[in-house]
Amino acid sequence: MVAEGYEGVLVYFGCAGWLKRVYKKVEHEMIEMVKMTKSVGRDPRRIIHSIKVASAITLASFFYYFKPLYDSFGASAIWAIITVIVVFEFSVGATIGKGLNRMIATILGGALGFGTHYLANLCGDKGLPLILGALVFVVAAIATFMRFFPSMKARYDYGLLIFILTFSMVAVSSYRDDEVLKLASDRFLTIVIGSFIAVSICIFVCPIWIGNDLHDQLVNNVENLATFLQEFGAQYFRSSQGVEQVNKASMHKYKTILTSKQSEESMANLARWEPGPRKFGFRHPWKQYLNISSSARECAYRVRVLDVYLKNNDQIQIESQFKEEFLRMCKESAKALKEVAMAIKKMAPPALASAHIERAKATTENLSSLLANHRFEGLEMIPTATLVSLLIDLLCCIEKVADCTRELGCVANLRRGESLGAVVPAADQDLINV
Amino acid sequence: MVAEGYEGVLVYFGCAGWLKRVYKKVEHEMIEMVKMTKSVGRDPRRIIHSIKVASAITLASFFYYFKPLYDSFGASAIWAIITVIVVFEFSVGATIGKGLNRMIATILGGALGFGTHYLANLCGDKGLPLILGALVFVVAAIATFMRFFPSMKARYDYGLLIFILTFSMVAVSSYRDDEVLKLASDRFLTIVIGSFIAVSICIFVCPIWIGNDLHDQLVNNVENLATFLQEFGAQYFRSSQGVEQVNKASMHKYKTILTSKQSEESMANLARWEPGPRKFGFRHPWKQYLNISSSARECAYRVRVLDVYLKNNDQIQIESQFKEEFLRMCKESAKALKEVAMAIKKMAPPALASAHIERAKATTENLSSLLANHRFEGLEMIPTATLVSLLIDLLCCIEKVADCTRELGCVANLRRGESLGAVVPAADQDLINV
Repeated sequence: MVAEGYEGVLVYFGCAGWLKRVYKKVEHEMIEMVKMTKSVGRDPRRIIHSIKVASAITLASFFYYFKPLYDSFGASAIWAIITVIVVFEFSVGATIGKGLNRMIATILGGALGFGTHYLANLCGDKGLPLILGALVFVVAAIATFMRFFPSMKARYDYGLLIFILTFSMVAVSSYRDDEVLKLASDRFLTIVIGSFIAVSICIFVCPIWIGNDLHDQLVNNVENLATFLQEFGAQYFRSSQGVEQVNKASMHKYKTILTSKQSEESMANLARWEPGPRKFGFRHPWKQYLNISSSARECAYRVRVLDVYLKNNDQIQIESQFKEEFLRMCKESAKALKEVAMAIKKMAPPALASAHIERAKATTENLSSLLANHRFEGLEMIPTATLVSLLIDLLCCIEKVADCTRELGCVANLRRGESLGAVVPAADQDLINV
Repeated sequence: MVAEGYEGVLVYFGCAGWLKRVYKKVEHEMIEMVKMTKSVGRDPRRIIHSIKVASAITLASFFYYFKPLYDSFGASAIWAIITVIVVFEFSVGATIGKGLNRMIATILGGALGFGTHYLANLCGDKGLPLILGALVFVVAAIATFMRFFPSMKARYDYGLLIFILTFSMVAVSSYRDDEVLKLASDRFLTIVIGSFIAVSICIFVCPIWIGNDLHDQLVNNVENLATFLQEFGAQYFRSSQGVEQVNKASMHKYKTILTSKQSEESMANLARWEPGPRKFGFRHPWKQYLNISSSARECAYRVRVLDVYLKNNDQIQIESQFKEEFLRMCKESAKALKEVAMAIKKMAPPALASAHIERAKATTENLSSLLANHRFEGLEMIPTATLVSLLIDLLCCIEKVADCTRELGCVANLRRGESLGAVVPAADQDLINV
C-alpha cells in the first residue's frame, strides 16, 4: 500500500516534470516564432504581398462561386486559381515573366500536342499508343535538354517546363478524351484569365518593381563602400585629439557586395520583363548596372583586404605626417564614391567624382615623396608601404567604377532623349550647379 | 514595256538580295545553335538527364494507355504526369526534396481544405461562399507570408506553394463538386505515384548526387587556389634561367570561387535531402563545407588583389634574393593548399598541411630579416614590402582553411565511427604513411 502510494507520487512527479519540459519547449518555440515573424514583417512589402496574393486567389475563386461563370468553364475554372497561385511572385518582373512564359508555352505546347494527336491518329488504333509514346518521349527529351541552354535558362526556363507539361497533357489525354479540344481551349482561357488577375493585382496594387530594388541595392552598395572608407580613415588615421565615434556596424555593411553577384544577375534578368516604373522604362541599360556592380565588387575585395590587414596589425605605428595624407586620401576616395552613388541614383554621369579622384591621386604623390625621403628603422616601413600600395590599387578600382557609371549616365540620357524625341542636355551641368 | 521590264529586274534583284540576307541569317543562327548544343552537351549528364525525364514521362503516361489503370483513376491520372514533369530535377537531392514537399503539402493542404469545407457547411447555403472565401483568404495570406521565413524558404518553399494550391483547390471546388473526397484522394494517390516514378528513376538510373558535386567543387576550388600560387610564383619570381611555361588559363580558374557563395549554399541545402551516395550518408556535415568554402573565399580575395597588383606593376624590379624567398613561399603555400584539397577529398584531417605552413612561415621570417637589413633607394621597397604583407596575410587565411578542414575531417571521422558502431582510427596516420 505504501509502495503503491510511493509509485503514484513518482509517476506524478515524473509526469509533472515531463509536462514542464514540454511546456518550456513549446514556450521557447512560440517566442522564436514571434521573433521570426516580427523580423520578417519588418519589411511591410511582405505583408502587402501576402494580402495581394490572397486577394488574387479569392478573386479567381469567383469562377466557382458565381453560377454563370462556373457554367461556362466548369471544372476547368480550377486552372485560373492554380495559375494565380503559381504565377504570382514578389516582384512585377517575376510575375510578368512567369505569366507570359505560362501563356505562350501553353498555347505552343497545346498546338504541338494536337499536331501529335492527329499525326498519331493516321497510324490507326493499334499503333496509336506506340506512336504517341515515341513522340512524347522525343519532344520531352529535346525540351528538357534545351532547359540547359544558358540563354533559355535565364528567362524561359519556366516556359519550357510548362511547354513540356501542356504538350504531354494534350497529347496523352487525347488518347482517352474526345473532347480534348474543348478542354484544352478552356484551360488556355482560364490560364490567360488567371495570369491577367495575377499580373494586374501585382502591377496596380502597391507594385514592387525589381528594377527599383536593383537600382537601390547598387546605390546602397556603393554608398557602403564610401562609408567604410570614411570610418576606416577615422578609426586608424585620425589625429589623437579626434573624438569621432566610429560606427562599426555601418562600417562593415560593405560585406554584402562581396557575394551579391548571382542575386544581382537574376534581378537584372527579371527587371527586363518590367514595363518599368516611371523613371526607367523598357530597354533600361541593366547590363551597365552589372558592369558597375562588378567593378564595385573589385573595390570591395581591396576593402576587405585593407580591413583585415589593419585589424590583424592594430599595434602598428604610423607616423603622423603619413596619417594625415592617408586620412585625406580616404576622405577624398569616400567622397568620390558618394558622388558615384549619387550619380547612379540620378542616372547621370558623376561630374564631381573625377575632381575627388584627382585630389586623392595628388595625396598618393605626396605619400610617395614622403616615403622616398623618410628614414625608416628596420621593418617600420612595411605597413606604411603596404597601405600606400593598397590604397593606390583601390583608387584605380574606384576610377573604374566612376567610368562605368559615366557610361550608364550617357546611355540612360540617350534612352531618355530617344523616348522624349529630343536630346536632353547632359546632366553634368545639373550636378555642378547643385 | 521597257519600264515594266526594268521594274521586274529591280524586283527580282530586290527579292534575291532579301532572300540571300534571310538565308545568311538563318545559316548564322543554325551554326550558333549547333555550337551551343555542342557546348551544353559536353557534359554527358545533361543528355542522360533529358533521356531520364522523357522516360519517366512515358512511364507515367501508361496510366492513360492501359485501360485497367485508366479505369481506376480516370482523368486524375494526368496528375501523375504533371507530378513527374514538375518534380524531376537534375540532382537526386532536388528531386527528393520536391517530391517530399509535394506529397506532404498535398496531404496537409487537402486535409485542411476538407476541414474548411465542413466548417463552412455549418453556416448554411447562403453564407457558404462568404465563409469559404474568408477562410481561403486568411490561410493563403498566412502561408504566403510564411514563405518569407528564411528557414522555410531554404527547404520548404515549394511545399508551402503546393499547400496553398491544394488547400484552395479542395476548399473552393468542394463548393460545386460533391465527389471532391474521391477526387482529392485520387489526386493524392496519383501524385504519390508520380513522385515515386520521378524519384526512383532519378536515383536508380545514373544518379546525379548534388552532394558529390558540392564536394568536388570545393576540392576544385581549393586546388585552383593552389594552382594560382604555383603559377604566380613561376611567373614573377622564377630565376631568369627558368624556362617554365605559365598556364594563364588554369592560373585564373580561382575566379569562380569569388562569387560561388550563393550556389554553394543552395547546393548544401539540396544535399541535405539526399540519403547519400555510399561515401557520405545522411547527416553529412555539409555546414563544415560552407565554412571551408567561406575561408577559402577569404584567400581568394587576397589572391585577387595579389594577381591584379603584380599585373598592374609588371615593370617593378625585385632583387633576386627576395625572389628566391617569395618563390619558396608561394611553393610551400601551394603545397599546403594541395594537401588541404586532398584532405577534403578524403574527408580526413590535412596532416602534412601544417608542416608546409610552418615552412612558409619560416620564409616570411627570412623575408622580414632581409627587408630589415637591406638598403633600398627611394621608392624601391614599396612593391617588396607590399608583397611580403599580402603573402603573410594570405598565409593566415590558408591556415584558417586548414583548420576548417581539420574540423571537417574530425566530424566526418566521428560520423563514420558512429555509423560503423566503432571508433575509426584517426586518418592522419594514413596520410602520413601514403
